[in-house]
Amino acid sequence: MNFKMITYVIGWLLTFEAAFMAVPIITAAVYGEVEAWHFVGTAVFCLIIGRLLTFKKRKNTTLYSRDGFVIVALSWTILSIFGAMPFWLSGAIPNYVDALFETVSGFTTTGASILSDVEALPKCMLMWRSFTHWVGGMGVLVFIMAFLPLAGGQNMHIMRAESPGPSVSKLVPRVRTTALILYAIYFVLTVIEFILLLCGGMTIFEATNTAFATAGTGGFGFLNSSMGSFSPYIQIVITVFMLLFSINFNSYFFILLGRFKDAFTTEVRTFLIIVATAITAITINISPLFESVGEALRHSSFTVASLISTTGFSTVDFDLWPEFSKNVLVLIMFIGACAGSTGGGIKVSRIIILFKSLGKELRTLIHPREVKKLKIDGHIVEHETLRSVNVYMVSFVLIFVFSIVAISFDNHDFITNFTAVTATINNIGPGLEMVGPTCNFGFFSIPSKLVFIFDMLAGRLELFPMLVLFTPATWKK
Amino acid sequence: MNFKMITYVIGWLLTFEAAFMAVPIITAAVYGEVEAWHFVGTAVFCLIIGRLLTFKKRKNTTLYSRDGFVIVALSWTILSIFGAMPFWLSGAIPNYVDALFETVSGFTTTGASILSDVEALPKCMLMWRSFTHWVGGMGVLVFIMAFLPLAGGQNMHIMRAESPGPSVSKLVPRVRTTALILYAIYFVLTVIEFILLLCGGMTIFEATNTAFATAGTGGFGFLNSSMGSFSPYIQIVITVFMLLFSINFNSYFFILLGRFKDAFTTEVRTFLIIVATAITAITINISPLFESVGEALRHSSFTVASLISTTGFSTVDFDLWPEFSKNVLVLIMFIGACAGSTGGGIKVSRIIILFKSLGKELRTLIHPREVKKLKIDGHIVEHETLRSVNVYMVSFVLIFVFSIVAISFDNHDFITNFTAVTATINNIGPGLEMVGPTCNFGFFSIPSKLVFIFDMLAGRLELFPMLVLFTPATWKK
Repeated sequence: MNFKMITYVIGWLLTFEAAFMAVPIITAAVYGEVEAWHFVGTAVFCLIIGRLLTFKKRKNTTLYSRDGFVIVALSWTILSIFGAMPFWLSGAIPNYVDALFETVSGFTTTGASILSDVEALPKCMLMWRSFTHWVGGMGVLVFIMAFLPLAGGQNMHIMRAESPGPSVSKLVPRVRTTALILYAIYFVLTVIEFILLLCGGMTIFEATNTAFATAGTGGFGFLNSSMGSFSPYIQIVITVFMLLFSINFNSYFFILLGRFKDAFTTEVRTFLIIVATAITAITINISPLFESVGEALRHSSFTVASLISTTGFSTVDFDLWPEFSKNVLVLIMFIGACAGSTGGGIKVSRIIILFKSLGKELRTLIHPREVKKLKIDGHIVEHETLRSVNVYMVSFVLIFVFSIVAISFDNHDFITNFTAVTATINNIGPGLEMVGPTCNFGFFSIPSKLVFIFDMLAGRLELFPMLVLFTPATWKK
Repeated sequence: MNFKMITYVIGWLLTFEAAFMAVPIITAAVYGEVEAWHFVGTAVFCLIIGRLLTFKKRKNTTLYSRDGFVIVALSWTILSIFGAMPFWLSGAIPNYVDALFETVSGFTTTGASILSDVEALPKCMLMWRSFTHWVGGMGVLVFIMAFLPLAGGQNMHIMRAESPGPSVSKLVPRVRTTALILYAIYFVLTVIEFILLLCGGMTIFEATNTAFATAGTGGFGFLNSSMGSFSPYIQIVITVFMLLFSINFNSYFFILLGRFKDAFTTEVRTFLIIVATAITAITINISPLFESVGEALRHSSFTVASLISTTGFSTVDFDLWPEFSKNVLVLIMFIGACAGSTGGGIKVSRIIILFKSLGKELRTLIHPREVKKLKIDGHIVEHETLRSVNVYMVSFVLIFVFSIVAISFDNHDFITNFTAVTATINNIGPGLEMVGPTCNFGFFSIPSKLVFIFDMLAGRLELFPMLVLFTPATWKK
C-alpha cells in the first residue's frame, strides 16, 4: 500500500474542500448570515491539514488497483467527516452523526435527510447541501484530477474506482482530458437548467439550489414540500433535466461530435424505453386520483424521472398511490440510471448485461456445445466485465440483506426498513411508509444511521471500494 | 427434441400417479368416504392415458440436456394437472385453478393452501395432500427411475434437472442404485418419525399425515391451527425431523458407512450454525412474549426449523413477533435447506459458494495477479458450477421481481406480496401479514394464483427446467 500517495491525495482533497466552502460563505455574505464563520472556520481547518499532508515529498507515485479503491473510499469518508462540521458547529444539526448522515447523503447524491423542517435552516446551509450534490455527482476525485496531475499515469485506477457503471471508457486517450470534457458537459448542462428555472420565475437562490441538486441527481430540496409548490413549467423542466443527467455523459460528447449513432447506445435506448413504459403504466394506474390525465401524466413523469435518476425530488406523496404503482417505483429505484451519468442504482447497463448473459446461459443449457460471445452495441462483453457484474450483484444483495437485518433492531415495519435501505444504497432519498416523500430519516437510531451512512457511500462508490476498505487482506503487506 | 421419449416417460409418470392414488383410496375405504370414487375415477383415467402413451415403441432413447429439462418441467406440470382432479370433481375445491394451486403446492412441497378450513376436507383428501408432499419431496422421476430403466444410460440428465442443489453427486456409479439408496433412507426416516409420533399419542391418520408432510418438508396440516394444539413432545419430534430432512441425504449414507468426516460437510456444518444462531437470536428477541424462556426456545426452534427447512408448519402466529425476529425468519426462508435434501430455498451450498466467490473476487481486486481456485471441503468448485450458481441467482431475482409486479395488480400490501412470493418460490407455505401462518392464499385473484403456481414449480425444480420450457429456442429444431 502506497500510504504516502494516499495521504498526498487526501491532502489535495481537503484543500479543494476548503475551496468548495467558498460557495456557502458567499451565500452567507449575501444574506448576512452569521453561520458564515462556521464555514470559514472549517475551511481554514481543512486548508491547514490539507497543506500539511501535501507538504511531504512523495518519491513513489505508483498506484495499484488496491490503492485506487482505498483512496476513493477514504476520500469520500474524510470529505464527509469535514463537510459535516459546519452543520454541527453552528448547532443547526445538534448531533454529529446526524450532521454526518446529512453530509454523506449530500456528497453521495442520495438526498435523504434527517431534518423534519429544512425551511428552518439558514440559506448558506441549504446552499452547502445542494452544492455537495453537485460536487459528488461527477465524482470529486475526477474533479481534482481534471486540474491536477495527481498520480502521473496512474489516474485510471482512481477514475475506475470512482466512476459509476461496469466499465469506464476514456473518451480521449488522456484521463485528464476526459475528465475535463465530462466536467465541461456537466457545467454547461447545469447552467442551462439554471437559466430555464430563472425563466420560470425561481429566484437565483432557488434556481442555483435546484440546478445543483438536479445535476448531481441528489434531491435535497429547500422547501418541506420538495417541488410540489412550483408551477407545472418548473416541474417539467426539472423532469427533463433529471432524465438528461441520468444519461451516460459520453452520449453528449458523441452528439457534439455529430456521431448520433454512437450516442444512442443500447443502454440509452433501453433506459428511455423503461422510462416510457413506467410512466405509461403508472399514469393509467393513478389517473383516477387526479382531475385530468394530463395532471396524472405530469406527476407520474416527474416521479418516474425522479426515482429512476435516483434524484428523489417529489411533487406529490407517491406513498399514497396504488400498490402496483408503488411496486413499479420500487423496481425502477433498483434499476437506476445509465452508467457514466451522475445517477445511482444498479445501472441500466448492468441490467442489460444480466439479461443478455441469462439468455446466453439458457441457450447453453439447451444447446451445450454452442459457444457464443455476449455482445452489446457490436462490442464483445469481456469475461472480466461479466464477472465483475456478477460479483457486484452478489455484493449488492448481501449488503442489502445485512442492512435490513441490522436496522430491524429499531423495530419499524418491513416496508419502511426495506425501502429505507433501497433509498440509501441506490442513492435516491425517499422511500415508502415512514421514509416516504413527506417524511425523513430522523427517527432512526444512531446505529441504524451509521448503517445508512455505509450504504450511501457503498452505493455511490459501486460497492467495491467500501468492501475493499473493510477487507482485512487490504491491510496486509 | 426427442418427443417420443418425452411422451414415453410421461406415460410411465401417469401410470405411477394412478398407483399413488391407492393411498387416498385406502384412506377413504377405511373411513367409509364416498370421495373414494373421485380418486378411483382419476386413477383409471391416468392409467388409460399412461398405458396409451407407453404403448408405442421408442427406437431412439438418446436424451440430451434439453430433453431432461423439458421432461422434468412437463412431468411436474402434468402430474399436478391430473392430481388436482379429485379435489375439483368432488367439489371439495370448486374452482379448478384453486385445486391446481393446492396440488402444485403439495407436489412442490410448498404447503401453501387456498383453503380457509382444512378440517372440513374429507380424510382421504387430507391424506392425498400430505402424500403429494412425500412423493414430491425426493422427486417423482427419481422415484420412477429407481424402479424402471427409463432412458438407458441417460437418466443422469433427468436426475440433474430434478434434484435440488448446484451439483448432483452419484453415491454409487449407477444412477438407479443411487436413487434406490436415497429413497431407502427417505423411507426409513419417515417410518421412524411415524413411530415416534404414534408414541406421542397421535392417531395413525395424524401420524401418517404429519410424517409425510415433514419428510417432504411440505407443511400441509390437517388442523386449522397447524401444529399449535399438539403436545411439546410432538412439537419437538417434528422440529428434529424437519431439520433431519433438510440435511443432504448423502450425509446419512456416509454415516451408515461410518465415514463421519464425509458426512459433516461444510454445508451441513454451516446449516447447523445458521440454525443455532437464528434460534438463539429469536429466542432472546421473543422471550418477553412467553411465560418462560423454555417456551420461547421451543417455539423459536420449531419456527426456525419449519422455515429454514421450508416446511411451513407453525405452532404460534409468528407474524405477531417483533420486526427483528420476522426479518431473521424472512432471511432464513431464502437460505433454505441443504442441497440434496427434500427442502427448498436457495440452498446453503449456493450461499457458501456465493460468499466464497465474493471473498475470492475481493482478494483479486486487491491482488490482481494472484490466481486461486475456489475450494469447498478440499474439492475445487468447478467454473461450470460457479457460473450456474450465478445464473441461478440472477434468474431467481428476475422471477422474484416479475412475480411481485405481476401480483401487485391485486393491490394488496407490499409485505403480503413480498412474503407470498418468498413463500412460494422457496416452497415454504406461509409468509407474513395476509399470508401469515393463520391465513391462506385463497383471496388472491386467478392470475396471481397462476403466478404462484409457476413460482412453486420453478422453485422446486430449481428454476432452469421451467425457464427452459418457456424459452423459444427450446422448441426450435
